[in-house]
Amino acid sequence: MSVASGQSVPSAQPAKHTSFHPLAPLSAHEITSAAAIIKASWPAHTDLHFKVITLHEPPKAEVIPYLEAEHSKKSRPTISRKAFINYYIRNTNKFHEAIVNLSSGKILNNVLLGPNFHANGDGDEIIAIEKIALEDESVKAEIAKLKLPEGTVVISDPWIYGSDGINDDERLYQCFLYMRDPMNPSEADSNHYALPLPISPVITTENMKVIRIDILPTGADNTIKELQPYQIKPPNEYIPEYQTLRTDLKPLNVVQPEGASFKITREGTSSTLSWQKWNFRIGFNQREGMVLYDVRYDNRSLFYRMSLSDMNIPYADPRHPFHKKSAFDLGDAGAGIMANNLKLGCDCLGSIYYLDAHLSDDKGGVTHMENVVCIHEQDAGIGWKHTNYRTGRAAVVRSRELVLQSIITVSNYEYILAFVFNQAGELDYEIRATGILSTQPIDDGIEVPFGTVVHPGVLAVHHQHHFSLRVDPMIEGHENRVVYDEAHAMPRSDFNPHGTGYYVKSTVVEESGGYDLDFDKNRTFKIQNANVRNPVNGYPVGYKIQAPPFQKMLSDKDSYNYKRAEFADHNIYVVKYRDGELYSGGQYTNQSRGGTGVRSWADRKESVKDADIVLYIQAGINHIPRVEDFPVMPCETFRIQLKPVNFFDKNPALDVPPSEQSFNKSVQVAETHQQPSVVGKIGKDGEVCCTSKL
Amino acid sequence: MSVASGQSVPSAQPAKHTSFHPLAPLSAHEITSAAAIIKASWPAHTDLHFKVITLHEPPKAEVIPYLEAEHSKKSRPTISRKAFINYYIRNTNKFHEAIVNLSSGKILNNVLLGPNFHANGDGDEIIAIEKIALEDESVKAEIAKLKLPEGTVVISDPWIYGSDGINDDERLYQCFLYMRDPMNPSEADSNHYALPLPISPVITTENMKVIRIDILPTGADNTIKELQPYQIKPPNEYIPEYQTLRTDLKPLNVVQPEGASFKITREGTSSTLSWQKWNFRIGFNQREGMVLYDVRYDNRSLFYRMSLSDMNIPYADPRHPFHKKSAFDLGDAGAGIMANNLKLGCDCLGSIYYLDAHLSDDKGGVTHMENVVCIHEQDAGIGWKHTNYRTGRAAVVRSRELVLQSIITVSNYEYILAFVFNQAGELDYEIRATGILSTQPIDDGIEVPFGTVVHPGVLAVHHQHHFSLRVDPMIEGHENRVVYDEAHAMPRSDFNPHGTGYYVKSTVVEESGGYDLDFDKNRTFKIQNANVRNPVNGYPVGYKIQAPPFQKMLSDKDSYNYKRAEFADHNIYVVKYRDGELYSGGQYTNQSRGGTGVRSWADRKESVKDADIVLYIQAGINHIPRVEDFPVMPCETFRIQLKPVNFFDKNPALDVPPSEQSFNKSVQVAETHQQPSVVGKIGKDGEVCCTSKL
Repeated sequence: MSVASGQSVPSAQPAKHTSFHPLAPLSAHEITSAAAIIKASWPAHTDLHFKVITLHEPPKAEVIPYLEAEHSKKSRPTISRKAFINYYIRNTNKFHEAIVNLSSGKILNNVLLGPNFHANGDGDEIIAIEKIALEDESVKAEIAKLKLPEGTVVISDPWIYGSDGINDDERLYQCFLYMRDPMNPSEADSNHYALPLPISPVITTENMKVIRIDILPTGADNTIKELQPYQIKPPNEYIPEYQTLRTDLKPLNVVQPEGASFKITREGTSSTLSWQKWNFRIGFNQREGMVLYDVRYDNRSLFYRMSLSDMNIPYADPRHPFHKKSAFDLGDAGAGIMANNLKLGCDCLGSIYYLDAHLSDDKGGVTHMENVVCIHEQDAGIGWKHTNYRTGRAAVVRSRELVLQSIITVSNYEYILAFVFNQAGELDYEIRATGILSTQPIDDGIEVPFGTVVHPGVLAVHHQHHFSLRVDPMIEGHENRVVYDEAHAMPRSDFNPHGTGYYVKSTVVEESGGYDLDFDKNRTFKIQNANVRNPVNGYPVGYKIQAPPFQKMLSDKDSYNYKRAEFADHNIYVVKYRDGELYSGGQYTNQSRGGTGVRSWADRKESVKDADIVLYIQAGINHIPRVEDFPVMPCETFRIQLKPVNFFDKNPALDVPPSEQSFNKSVQVAETHQQPSVVGKIGKDGEVCCTSKL
Repeated sequence: MSVASGQSVPSAQPAKHTSFHPLAPLSAHEITSAAAIIKASWPAHTDLHFKVITLHEPPKAEVIPYLEAEHSKKSRPTISRKAFINYYIRNTNKFHEAIVNLSSGKILNNVLLGPNFHANGDGDEIIAIEKIALEDESVKAEIAKLKLPEGTVVISDPWIYGSDGINDDERLYQCFLYMRDPMNPSEADSNHYALPLPISPVITTENMKVIRIDILPTGADNTIKELQPYQIKPPNEYIPEYQTLRTDLKPLNVVQPEGASFKITREGTSSTLSWQKWNFRIGFNQREGMVLYDVRYDNRSLFYRMSLSDMNIPYADPRHPFHKKSAFDLGDAGAGIMANNLKLGCDCLGSIYYLDAHLSDDKGGVTHMENVVCIHEQDAGIGWKHTNYRTGRAAVVRSRELVLQSIITVSNYEYILAFVFNQAGELDYEIRATGILSTQPIDDGIEVPFGTVVHPGVLAVHHQHHFSLRVDPMIEGHENRVVYDEAHAMPRSDFNPHGTGYYVKSTVVEESGGYDLDFDKNRTFKIQNANVRNPVNGYPVGYKIQAPPFQKMLSDKDSYNYKRAEFADHNIYVVKYRDGELYSGGQYTNQSRGGTGVRSWADRKESVKDADIVLYIQAGINHIPRVEDFPVMPCETFRIQLKPVNFFDKNPALDVPPSEQSFNKSVQVAETHQQPSVVGKIGKDGEVCCTSKL
């Protein structure tokens, strides 16, 4: 096994589980062992439908001494490996949660979950649902009423059913139907979202049958019209062969002649990365995708664990069945299992290192996910600069960033998710929303205030994206606090006679709860360790959070949308750490009822001052679609930033080598013959002008 | 003259002023002609101190037909060239404003300005002030009380005096004193801001004499202590030879084998740039630096003029004389005249084109400013992506950006200012704040709520950065309106039975005024042309403004800070266009009294609906210094974004060629021998681990 192979080959691992780091993802061998142990607990030939088999992370209390031993190069304690498993008895509603000790082979827990606990969708299931919807005779009968052109290919997009409390105790799928361009039905990559149909079959996963067919409202109100013969609409393709491409974009290559500056150490299924004083461990799982552990800078501890915890996308159309569109893409499907296989030279520039993953499939086998994380460096412009105007000497450094990127496809939509590190001790989480809008049919000439017509007959409904980043800090240790600073004007006084003074007031967050930004007060949240002081000014060492503004959940407080998305009502939740609490929307989000997420944990009103705390930082977009977002949307990009505040004793990027031509090798346009050549010509009224010709 | 020369050579211009584009900056010849015409209006040997000689832009009503003729390739009308001039009779307070017609050689206007109108500082003046402060015997006597080590070099930083209405009708400078590291006094680039002194001479520019010496408060209150012998403090240098530099950063080169994708056409002192369907004219002047004119996309008009209009940085320390620290760097000095000479391979990567400028000096001569603007492309990650999960086919394009960057040094501070264009019809204005904090002495062991101790004995006071971007739109014509959209929850009803619905409400801005963002309502401002409708959905074509949140002016409404910074109290000002109104803080900001800026223009309460309007978009930072911001601060970066909203009929970046390895030439880390080579070794407890060695 070698870092250069770009492969993780767990079969090459010794069976000895002690060889695994306690935070290492399950190996393929461990996944199949876990499945075998569960299968063995049932009568032979019981058909189990596995939903997830993933690492059951050890209690933090066990991991901390392990990490301390690891960093002090002492011998590390043995921690038994455990798997967390969800499964059904196939084609029943018998949903189980189990924990298996892989070191001992023992089942520690294996329980049938009660009503209203439903598993995520999985790939094979979704493909089966698509097929069932389209092959159902009653669905075909409805489609026939549209009198679609001969040879039209209808596409079914299964959607997680959502919750409204009306006949939805069963696990259901709502399918939305579209068609390929009827004039070009053989194009498998035709953008069917440009051609939505008003028919929506509902399927139960208990016996995989259509239980209902919803006809969609296509006007301004909630009237359901009788199905009419379909009026031909134009296609709107996004793939390049249907475009007249620009021809004037010249190549821009990122060349790293000495290779990348980062160093990756593989240890079984786990990797550690070191780069520019940063050091951390990378994990990957079915639900969260990328997870960072034990993040340190210059050997000083910063974060125990970081991951995208949850995501919720509620839609604005209140009409049945659209009111149930409220996706929790991590809990309902999984950021790991939906990760793209990233292609060299397509998704990143420069010197790229790829990570693979092994995830479970629905039969207890292994899905080998290739290139699910790409790791590379990028230039981020000037890092800092000062010019001494007296001597004319400029001191300048560039900012180099390290990017760990994963891209997930959630049927129509894409999210580009990245952890970004820089040389100034800053760590960002970048989110780019792209892909194709979820669309529905709308009658000609209709305008609605809850969506935008982005193509003839196509409505793209407004929707909110709520992201929840889980940050488990260990700023110089595990006893941390959250403080928020506000800037306030000073009242006039002998001290402030001209009304110009202002001051900063710090408030300690004492109790677990949801907290909000207030830009008019410049309210800034910091994670601090009050027991470690800055050597220069004696302030507690800390990191501040810079999160962009977003509009919080618009659904009302009695709605299921609000009850389920327990993170979407505050910028920041601060709670006391508890093992097993990882997902701010709760462990089981599919058709969930709420009461199991971060809002509920915060309601314990625990003291979070100088304690082992966890933060959930929310950000998002209220996406009011533009025509420009169709047929595929330009990335909408934002970052949650974590920046040191009095953590270092000076600018930590002060030691970055100066930005110099000998290192950067830039080219002056004037200095290369490949650059615009120029002809002077006499313009009208005798002027001389110069035109560069490319 | 050639585009490849990277030089503007106005002397090579024909004298015929008709050869100049009406928006072209003054040529060196025009600058000296303008000065000569003014000088000739005074008795021989009158010593004039010129403050600015710059293009007096023609009335928009004259320029519009010119641009129409230009774009329709018709013969263009002749517009006379005019210069705007400010000057003093040297060493008096006689401050003049003049306009000269360069085509006719006639003075159109030449007036002595009244009290409280003061000019910007200029380079020669500032150097003279430094000298006067240090050579003044009474200042030397105060410095002597500090008993500084033999050979200590004291540095004087002249500051614009600011306004408090107390004996400040005269034009004054406040100097803050520092010293080089006394142990290393020959280091001309020593960071003197790490060693501030408590003595502050005040100088009048009328006779260039010290009129007062302020002793600075160095405690927590406003007590002025008697000067004591200086206690040696450590230095804190930022230049590389005093650092132990990191050695593990490998080169990252941006290589453009076919050169840059942009095309620049030089026309006298003016340049037009075309890139990826964008086309615009670039100007540069003493006050604003870069100015963009006639910005079009795919030949559709968008913006008549864009520039940074003003900037204000008030400080939080209310104690005399610090309460007067409130810089207007554009009006008090000038973003053009302070622009850095950008160095190849230091300030940008890739294929770089540089623009020069010719600005006036204090004697009516010419300062040739080299490389004041660098123009280059950069990769901005993925532009859009969609993966068809059924076929596995990914369609992805990268986002290429065009950057026009200018960097200004305002004594201690730097601002990196850039217009950034992309292929999705988006135009951003990026601001990076870097450089060195303005510092003052503080006694050991003192903490204050209005500043941060960033080094022993050094206080960096909190300060607000308020930037004001002027946007003169012409979205498909000059009759535009501003609309703001808000997203609101729908009340429960038969239409919204589950409380999940929400809708967007649009409000037209009818009257000139200051308007604010409201993130809790997702309030979004758009510039629209109501007479031009989107072909897909019939909405007015428009551009939306995405500006980051910032805390508005904290100084109270009766303060001079508030009265002078007429833009700093609202996110967005909308006013009706008037010729000559360019600077949101007023024409003359130095020791200004207010009443001459955008707040005053807005108070005219003019109708701005479907009119020729101008927007001033504010953004900024409340900079609460961290130790990490010293001795030089890592860039604090933010962008004001302008994005099309129903302006195009689909994603305008749909025609960007696919992102492919054949074009991007990325390198898989596993595929180059220069990458980490790996050795497997047996770790403790028999595990196999792999360590990559660089």
